Amino acid sequence: MSYTAPIAQIAHTLVRIARLDEIAATGAFPNYDPELVAPILDEANKLARDVLAPLNPIGHKTGAKLTDAGVVAAPGLSDAYRQFVEGGWMGLAFPEAFGGQGLPKPLALAVFEMIHGANMAFGLCPLLSFGAIEALLAHGSDELQQTYLPKLISGEWTGAMNLTEPQAGSDVGALVTKAAPNGDGSYAITGQKIYITWGDHDMTPNIIQLVLARLPDAPAGSKGISLFVAPKFFVNADGSLGERNTFRCIGLEHKMGIHASPTCVMEYSGAKGWLVGEPNKGLAAMFTMMNSARLNVGLEGVAVGEAALQAGVAYAQDRKQGSAPGMQGSVSIIHHPDVQRMLATMASGVQAARAICYACGAAADLAEHHPDTDVRKVNKAREDLLTPLAKAWSTDRAIEVTNLGVQIHGGMGFMSETAAAQFYLDARITPIYEGTNGIQAMDLVGRKLSGDGGAAMGAMLAEVRATAREARATNQPKFVGVADRLEAGADALHEATQWMLGAMKSARETGLSGATAYLALAGDVVGGCLLTRGALDEQATLDAARTLGLAAYFAEDRLSRAPSAVASITSAAQALQDAGSVLWSA
Amino acid sequence: MSYTAPIAQIAHTLVRIARLDEIAATGAFPNYDPELVAPILDEANKLARDVLAPLNPIGHKTGAKLTDAGVVAAPGLSDAYRQFVEGGWMGLAFPEAFGGQGLPKPLALAVFEMIHGANMAFGLCPLLSFGAIEALLAHGSDELQQTYLPKLISGEWTGAMNLTEPQAGSDVGALVTKAAPNGDGSYAITGQKIYITWGDHDMTPNIIQLVLARLPDAPAGSKGISLFVAPKFFVNADGSLGERNTFRCIGLEHKMGIHASPTCVMEYSGAKGWLVGEPNKGLAAMFTMMNSARLNVGLEGVAVGEAALQAGVAYAQDRKQGSAPGMQGSVSIIHHPDVQRMLATMASGVQAARAICYACGAAADLAEHHPDTDVRKVNKAREDLLTPLAKAWSTDRAIEVTNLGVQIHGGMGFMSETAAAQFYLDARITPIYEGTNGIQAMDLVGRKLSGDGGAAMGAMLAEVRATAREARATNQPKFVGVADRLEAGADALHEATQWMLGAMKSARETGLSGATAYLALAGDVVGGCLLTRGALDEQATLDAARTLGLAAYFAEDRLSRAPSAVASITSAAQALQDAGSVLWSA
Repeated sequence: MSYTAPIAQIAHTLVRIARLDEIAATGAFPNYDPELVAPILDEANKLARDVLAPLNPIGHKTGAKLTDAGVVAAPGLSDAYRQFVEGGWMGLAFPEAFGGQGLPKPLALAVFEMIHGANMAFGLCPLLSFGAIEALLAHGSDELQQTYLPKLISGEWTGAMNLTEPQAGSDVGALVTKAAPNGDGSYAITGQKIYITWGDHDMTPNIIQLVLARLPDAPAGSKGISLFVAPKFFVNADGSLGERNTFRCIGLEHKMGIHASPTCVMEYSGAKGWLVGEPNKGLAAMFTMMNSARLNVGLEGVAVGEAALQAGVAYAQDRKQGSAPGMQGSVSIIHHPDVQRMLATMASGVQAARAICYACGAAADLAEHHPDTDVRKVNKAREDLLTPLAKAWSTDRAIEVTNLGVQIHGGMGFMSETAAAQFYLDARITPIYEGTNGIQAMDLVGRKLSGDGGAAMGAMLAEVRATAREARATNQPKFVGVADRLEAGADALHEATQWMLGAMKSARETGLSGATAYLALAGDVVGGCLLTRGALDEQATLDAARTLGLAAYFAEDRLSRAPSAVASITSAAQALQDAGSVLWSA
Repeated sequence: MSYTAPIAQIAHTLVRIARLDEIAATGAFPNYDPELVAPILDEANKLARDVLAPLNPIGHKTGAKLTDAGVVAAPGLSDAYRQFVEGGWMGLAFPEAFGGQGLPKPLALAVFEMIHGANMAFGLCPLLSFGAIEALLAHGSDELQQTYLPKLISGEWTGAMNLTEPQAGSDVGALVTKAAPNGDGSYAITGQKIYITWGDHDMTPNIIQLVLARLPDAPAGSKGISLFVAPKFFVNADGSLGERNTFRCIGLEHKMGIHASPTCVMEYSGAKGWLVGEPNKGLAAMFTMMNSARLNVGLEGVAVGEAALQAGVAYAQDRKQGSAPGMQGSVSIIHHPDVQRMLATMASGVQAARAICYACGAAADLAEHHPDTDVRKVNKAREDLLTPLAKAWSTDRAIEVTNLGVQIHGGMGFMSETAAAQFYLDARITPIYEGTNGIQAMDLVGRKLSGDGGAAMGAMLAEVRATAREARATNQPKFVGVADRLEAGADALHEATQWMLGAMKSARETGLSGATAYLALAGDVVGGCLLTRGALDEQATLDAARTLGLAAYFAEDRLSRAPSAVASITSAAQALQDAGSVLWSA
């Protein structure tokens, strides 16, 4: 399986969409130097292309194994992880105070896009560590931070997130795992957690579990959840490792894809843990982990989509079948218009998703670090709005793009060992975990849209219209065509937004029935806007033909559908409410 | 895994869409009696529900095995096949002259929808026999027909289709398997065939291969292909079985899904076969097999979609998560609007695809048997037009519907052993085999649309408009709403059709770039029309709320998108031609 990072596309997105210069101008990233970007991308590409990508089919075939001694990672991954740690990749965007490199978040997104693109099952391990790190950074005491963060940020230890229980998936408030005070400041955690990604493995000497559980007498539901940290091996005062904690992996799930990522059933039998943050405030801490994970899962969608695109292009160039006008004999299928159409849909979808994810990461940095309170506030709202789009729209694209990747391969795409098949199977989890895409849509129309009366979406629509005006002002026919689509898209999204704001007040069930379709439209319009933004800024460079081509194709293929999408949000929601269960009952 | 045939929906589609009464009125089906329909559906449901469905997860887990003695079917399938033969299901729609029951084709579609829905991997075995039977019926000599048809039509033997070779997939003309005359009227066939579904197994005493190969000195390309029949065991004059032929299965593919359907690599080493039809006319014979198979693959899409819908409803009723307004405590997720939206999209998509497939089967019967030449001609054109829609649009729905089925299951849907996962994996082959959906789209805009200057599509558009008028004339608000969508859909499809007819003449590559999007629009409009047709005819019955509800939901959710779909056919094709490979090149 081959993967080469699309460095030109990634660099373009970092500079034109994530606007690293604006992030650097906050003054919060003294280590950042624009000259560093190219070498970082080159080095990360080497790890991805040369080390991780060759292990991907092996991991798909072999998977992780559960032994008496615990989970054993798929062949080669321990050594790859060692190289990942040695490269210092884990700490790229984390604070120097704990050994990180203190660089802007979008740079880390760029690097982890490569890692996920080369080997998504592997990439999940640091992805979960991210969540643990961010929870400890935001909510951990000084002592907990000093104990765990340096080794998590160096990557010497990994972290995992223990949220789900059999009866508590999307509804975390239903969890029943208990945490009883031991009297010494620690707690005894007892319960079973499922779907714990990289909950156990043999790649590092220690694993740090972040665990949601209930204190005795905690209120019912989501207001009675607390967050705990529980290391696999206790950490002595001198930093050395002590005894083994009493939790263990008792089973691995058999999954469609990401076989090399162990999905653990974890049993906690009075395991010792320490409270992170306030009692009963675990939900807030969980959202700290989840928000990071949501953007990173969206990034997985970009990455696996890019990998599928590369495999599709390679196969289409190689596979000879049929004839084409003006060409002798059997031709590569890349000359067939329908194959080209699939590749164009893949390429434009992946780039739009990349733009949304990187823009979300940039907003997070500005929301945290910009010196101006108002700018921070605006960017926080932007980050909040973009997060469900980054997660759900990007992973919906991953399903579409990897599906097209299989289709380009024909019968070969249905064979288990084909790279295209692996990408399709790996991608299928992305719309599910870290909050299903339906949950993202509810988050978008609930907290994010109705929460501020549509203000953040209004700002986004203003940006879409400004971009359209700028495109029109070029007087170049292609840009003018894109401007037309963008304006029609903004009109459609505005109309749908007004409807949704009203529905969420007066007919909430109807509004929620349209949430997923609304998110799809919002992603199309925002994605189209960002592609155009990138193309406008790239006019003088060599890549201008590509960036404008992608913006124009996306505008005609997908954004053009926006006007009619309004009815599929509003009227279809009404038709569903009118008919109800008669539609599907036996 | 549980499956119960949706008898009410199927009966509705047979009576209202396939119009069994019109088919019977041709006089060609003296055995047909409307009173037979209910008992046939009931009996077939018993086979599907009680025998085949329980074997489906076992087959998924175990798969077919290749042994020294040949391919061994997954556990239980041989006994299930015996019951299938005893029920006389194979011969339902085949001529009495060869032991069939001579019933209308849509009845067989209904029965095989159940079989595929319960166990798609099993259903593929008779599906391939169908192709073999139809090739022999249309092109075989009396002797070949007498030798093979009675046992194929009884199901005592099965048939397989040997088309693909490693270098010859979609481009059948590239095949190199040779057939040399033996001097006794038979031929020695030598070559390798791949992707041969049920090419070998131990369920029946004989297997009849239909094989494409080249005669010595045959012209190059698709005009030099001939069709041969080659039995696994030769048939003596008295009908008993003689020696073993010299072909065998030398490998089984490892596939994403349909694990219980052996996908064989077949090696022919001078295997003895007999010519079917004229030398070098194998392509026509292949299309006889393919057209049957294409409709049946579309039917698989319907079936696996229905199975996914049933699993989705069952899980959504069972799984408790979160709260709902006006309800106490944790509620079944079927009360969540987003889940309802998924179920409604699944139910309406499956029913629209069912209507298209059954309408296609009905057109085939009328095209063959109607006493009036003009009616036969009109229906032949209708069958030809509907075949690529039945195949591609239905299987695209299968991908969408089984994907939603996984999504409803959340994390559980990603687990290999879940029924929802099996349906998703099984379904993935349907847009690929028997001509990829891209090939179907080329067939639609080439042979079917440009071939008659748009006449058959014009007739279809007139039907859509007539249905819209009839819906409007009811003066019922829901029907009037559907009429609006149908008319807008007809306008859009008309506009896209005119563009496509022009493009295929003057800018063929551009036209072909829009073929897949054009097929999607055509399927949406035709599907919406047939749902409305069914609802109009069902007004007085108990099921009226459901049929109208499905038509109304489909009209708002999907048909409403038709107006904007035109640009995604025409302008996107142009944007693609303008930009070309710069969009996806590294």
